[in-house]
Amino acid sequence: MGSSVKGIAVLGSTGSVGRQALDVIRAFPDQFTAIGLGGWRNHRLLDEQVVEFQPALVSYDDTGDGVVSSRLAASKRVSMEEMVCDPRVDIVVMAVAGPAGLVSTLRALRAGKTVALASKEVLVMAGPILAREMAGGAALLPVDSEPSAIWQCLRGEDSAVERIIITASGGSFRKRSPDTLHSVTPQEALNHPTWTMGRKITVDSATLMNKAFEVIEVHWLFDMPWECIEVVIHPQSIVHSFVEFQDASVKAQMAPPDMRLPLQYAMFYPERVRSEWLERLDFARVGSLDFEPLDETWYPCFSMALDVAKKGGTYPAALCGADEAAVTLFLDGKIGFMDIPDLIRRVIEEHRSGDAMSLDDVIAAESWARRRAHELVPASQ
Amino acid sequence: MGSSVKGIAVLGSTGSVGRQALDVIRAFPDQFTAIGLGGWRNHRLLDEQVVEFQPALVSYDDTGDGVVSSRLAASKRVSMEEMVCDPRVDIVVMAVAGPAGLVSTLRALRAGKTVALASKEVLVMAGPILAREMAGGAALLPVDSEPSAIWQCLRGEDSAVERIIITASGGSFRKRSPDTLHSVTPQEALNHPTWTMGRKITVDSATLMNKAFEVIEVHWLFDMPWECIEVVIHPQSIVHSFVEFQDASVKAQMAPPDMRLPLQYAMFYPERVRSEWLERLDFARVGSLDFEPLDETWYPCFSMALDVAKKGGTYPAALCGADEAAVTLFLDGKIGFMDIPDLIRRVIEEHRSGDAMSLDDVIAAESWARRRAHELVPASQ
Repeated sequence: MGSSVKGIAVLGSTGSVGRQALDVIRAFPDQFTAIGLGGWRNHRLLDEQVVEFQPALVSYDDTGDGVVSSRLAASKRVSMEEMVCDPRVDIVVMAVAGPAGLVSTLRALRAGKTVALASKEVLVMAGPILAREMAGGAALLPVDSEPSAIWQCLRGEDSAVERIIITASGGSFRKRSPDTLHSVTPQEALNHPTWTMGRKITVDSATLMNKAFEVIEVHWLFDMPWECIEVVIHPQSIVHSFVEFQDASVKAQMAPPDMRLPLQYAMFYPERVRSEWLERLDFARVGSLDFEPLDETWYPCFSMALDVAKKGGTYPAALCGADEAAVTLFLDGKIGFMDIPDLIRRVIEEHRSGDAMSLDDVIAAESWARRRAHELVPASQ
Repeated sequence: MGSSVKGIAVLGSTGSVGRQALDVIRAFPDQFTAIGLGGWRNHRLLDEQVVEFQPALVSYDDTGDGVVSSRLAASKRVSMEEMVCDPRVDIVVMAVAGPAGLVSTLRALRAGKTVALASKEVLVMAGPILAREMAGGAALLPVDSEPSAIWQCLRGEDSAVERIIITASGGSFRKRSPDTLHSVTPQEALNHPTWTMGRKITVDSATLMNKAFEVIEVHWLFDMPWECIEVVIHPQSIVHSFVEFQDASVKAQMAPPDMRLPLQYAMFYPERVRSEWLERLDFARVGSLDFEPLDETWYPCFSMALDVAKKGGTYPAALCGADEAAVTLFLDGKIGFMDIPDLIRRVIEEHRSGDAMSLDDVIAAESWARRRAHELVPASQ
């Protein structure tokens, strides 16, 4: 183990993934130190985090819950982009979605930082831009369970990959047919069977939009052709993904569902460090690991999202914006669960993209789609 | 892919594993050439193999089926030890058990050859001797599915391993309680649910002696402490083993049960080469992968064998000899299925070993135990 302490910036520290990144820092105080914490509007929690971790830098939004304590106010406040470029920062844990996450990710990579990426939307929006950075040596590491599983299975392997099979729990409504889903409540959608996550991603899991995002993430992270990436339903969320090599051998990575393992893996990479604190797989208790084909007709968001991603240009950015808005509208009770794919589809149909794609184009498309989705639901305005 | 053709010696070419090694050579005629074929007493099949593969060298026993054709007689006949040292041989596929396999394995390793080891008895008999060779750089590669799975999971991993979990189908009698097994016939024991293998190993699978041998093999191949190796029952034989790393992440290797995959993997190592000819895992059809704790009381050979292995010295060699004899006696109808562990136990109880252990000691212990087991069953003499 290296003797030097790694400086960490956690962007989105008050969200579900951010809090778990802080768990890793807390578990390894001799290896990691929090240089910067970026919250958003939950100033109360950010304040507690500042007290505990004493970061040199903080970042937060002014429109928050109003609890900017004197301690928080006394910390050095910077923008997220400034934070990720600070020379004391070695690793950026990126758990902020949307354009802000994308811009900060690019800044961090171009400043030579390692980015542990939890926000798959960042790769969905701007895959080709980030792929160019990776090809140039940028260290963009996945911390999502499924891409991390694939990354672990590819470790030490330099032969061609035949297929990547991403597992999907199937989300909150796996056993329910689509025609019963019109009336489900946000509360039902937020009740995920195996993972405890943020609200947006839990709804995205129920629609399988999240799984489509993972397919897109894997496409860009590992330079895999679309037709070589498959999804299989695996209700237990124990096997996090499979890689099939060209010799017909398959590797899988598994662990009890816990985001802190892929976070720890990325933060320590290439080392694997003993983690007494993480639950271990109990093989005698595993019982059965079940796998079923994915019925895409039950999850209209899934195939639509992949079709949009394959169109390229700024379509995937518009997809992210439209999905963000649609999920918000659903959680606010403004649209039904099955209106989510319809609304996204209407936004995408209106979107126009050129082949070329700058960062500004991406950001503009995401914002436009988000706004347009809200416009298309009059009651929400 | 390297341009040079690798020269292969297959020892035990007429047995189940040997024939599958020839399948690999047949599938990759531009990569492999059979330099030597070592059969035993099945001269008819060896003759056919000689016609097809035109090896420069052959090895066979004089007490065979009497069908030494003129073609076979015209081939250059050598001993197995001579064959493995031939300068044209790069890789030795070792599918000969017992002292002959052990001596040839050591010869090959000391001549700088890569040995793809199918005969786990070789490592069981002489683990410390072979471990010394490996520590000195000898290339002893597993081709058994389970150790190959572990080897593949360890690829690219340099962190400490927490546990190795070897899967076991449970053999022909998994669902039968021990008190119903006294009267089973050899034919029933030879009816393995998932693997088509030779007779000896199929009976060893039914007693779980084969699984104990794999634990011992893994102990020596990967320098794993005994207490870090576990066995779990997995009836489908799809997951071939698991490795749990110290960070709580688990990797598994899987594939449809087919020995030709680990054979190909070892013969091409470190490359993975496209194999159109091997069945691929159909994730939509996998359904369930089931895991159950191993009830050692149902498999008396298993825990006895591990106890014997831990005693060290020449006890494991005596174990191999006694098991070889006991299985032969069972297949010949001389003893019952549940007499196998009893007979082995009686032989081991009579055995005396010093701490030091030379190759000669190992060979003497194996032969003594084999003979002694036959003596203890008067009707068999």
